[in-house]
Amino acid sequence: MNMNKPIFKDIEEAHRRISEFIHRTPVLTCKSLDTIVGANLYFKCENFQKVGAFKFRGATNAVQLLTDEEMSKGVVTHSSGNHAQALALAAKMRKIKAYIIMPSNAPKSKVEAVKGYGGNVIFCEPTLVARETTTQKVIDETGAKLIHPYDNFNIIAGQGTAAKELIEDVGFMDIIMAPVGGGGLLSGTSISAKELLPHAKVIAAEPKNADDAFQSFYSKSFIPSVNPNTIADGLKTSLSDLTFSIILEKVDEILPVKEDTIAEAMKLIWQRMKIIIEPSSAVPLAAIMENPEVFANKKVGIILSGGNLDFDNLPFN
Amino acid sequence: MNMNKPIFKDIEEAHRRISEFIHRTPVLTCKSLDTIVGANLYFKCENFQKVGAFKFRGATNAVQLLTDEEMSKGVVTHSSGNHAQALALAAKMRKIKAYIIMPSNAPKSKVEAVKGYGGNVIFCEPTLVARETTTQKVIDETGAKLIHPYDNFNIIAGQGTAAKELIEDVGFMDIIMAPVGGGGLLSGTSISAKELLPHAKVIAAEPKNADDAFQSFYSKSFIPSVNPNTIADGLKTSLSDLTFSIILEKVDEILPVKEDTIAEAMKLIWQRMKIIIEPSSAVPLAAIMENPEVFANKKVGIILSGGNLDFDNLPFN
Repeated sequence: MNMNKPIFKDIEEAHRRISEFIHRTPVLTCKSLDTIVGANLYFKCENFQKVGAFKFRGATNAVQLLTDEEMSKGVVTHSSGNHAQALALAAKMRKIKAYIIMPSNAPKSKVEAVKGYGGNVIFCEPTLVARETTTQKVIDETGAKLIHPYDNFNIIAGQGTAAKELIEDVGFMDIIMAPVGGGGLLSGTSISAKELLPHAKVIAAEPKNADDAFQSFYSKSFIPSVNPNTIADGLKTSLSDLTFSIILEKVDEILPVKEDTIAEAMKLIWQRMKIIIEPSSAVPLAAIMENPEVFANKKVGIILSGGNLDFDNLPFN
Repeated sequence: MNMNKPIFKDIEEAHRRISEFIHRTPVLTCKSLDTIVGANLYFKCENFQKVGAFKFRGATNAVQLLTDEEMSKGVVTHSSGNHAQALALAAKMRKIKAYIIMPSNAPKSKVEAVKGYGGNVIFCEPTLVARETTTQKVIDETGAKLIHPYDNFNIIAGQGTAAKELIEDVGFMDIIMAPVGGGGLLSGTSISAKELLPHAKVIAAEPKNADDAFQSFYSKSFIPSVNPNTIADGLKTSLSDLTFSIILEKVDEILPVKEDTIAEAMKLIWQRMKIIIEPSSAVPLAAIMENPEVFANKKVGIILSGGNLDFDNLPFN
């Protein structure tokens, strides 16, 4: 397949482009967690990023790269998650329109958040067909440019800036970890890691209940996500051709983890680090807890992807 | 009354003494919260302190000041809260014994935490009389030194180091805020604030349902806390003669706040700042929300006192 894949230079350029708009988030450590898991963990806190998730990096990169002509028509995406808010805010900061297609059953809090960032929310039936039809209709009517949540060169280049900052701040690590859903964060992370720390392993973590990336990776053939059912709601999506091809090339391992371990890992981070992370962010720590032999005494960098969740529905109540 | 009250020099000395043992916690800001309340807020994050609360500052100062003779006999306190864990860890770090008197109905998680830090937990009936009898019995039997949670010169000097760091990091602020329970944190905070920012106001916040400090302050006579019932469980205790006398001298205002506002303020900080704070820490923000005219457009420093709570029992579920 002949695809245009981002390389590290694209991530460096993205970083220069977006750094005045994003937070350079802190890297936190926690001795008591290190003791519990028997490794040294470095947490890149994208839960403290604007809109509460790494997604703002990619969205900002994509929006900053629009031409004047494209800006006049705005951007469009389909997402009920963090990308929706990220694109809405990135568009607002350039004073352009953002059309956000959301399923009619999206949580009210997510809809309100997108509206709060100035996004034009357009509802569709909660099916793949309705989503794509509605998106196409908006494009036809407005000429807005589609900014896909992860199947997008500029989005991936933007997401890679989180791992770049992590490695700049910490220096050598044995292992770099990210969760995998659609694969945008993992793609960008793996490109940065393999450039800056060629001897480090890139290990992804995925819910067992949504293990399409795990299955695709080890069978080397694309397998879509079917009826995923996980508390890590940011990780339900399938890979795209682009992210799958980068992951095949740059990632060393994908570890599937159980729901109970995700909840336990999330609670541990809340209790010990006193920070709010969403369930998707807890998946790498869950993988460490389930596979201690892989991580024993290693220096491990972990991207905490975000901190947006409904407090009314905690997995450990 | 002729009491030996700490002055700022004691806080400076405490700071030199404890700084190798404590975390210098970060000061965080949050634009979206500032917009909501119409003021500029600077949060001193003692939820990130060791044991998850400012209490470790005072406990470390008190333990570091023990003589060799005192060290050989250990320390004792009565507390079911953060001071229990703080004293246990401070004692462990000097390899001395800590006897912690806890009520028999203390939450299991608190008891386990104290034991985890190596404390010798001794249970008593959950009454004031039983607590004092048991404490005296331990002192008689072991010769251990009582380290009261707040009615203690060295504890107050240690707690004052949080406000000192906050002011060193931020510079000028119009108002410095802390919650008030027994008054140790507020005493130390007010001593630092009046020395370093003589033109700033010191405003305390207290749950209306445990407003003994408010009543004592405005009547200028000590009124104990009777049957307090608040989600801010760290603020149920009465002032002591020592803390009351410092507060009368150094504090400008005490604002009582409603339970609903405390829960709302806590949720706002969780949602917007992505950090875990305990209900007591939310009381100053609740006071700002209930009294916007007092804080409009001011630079306000707030001590977030801690981040220890049971996730099974959130006030906003």
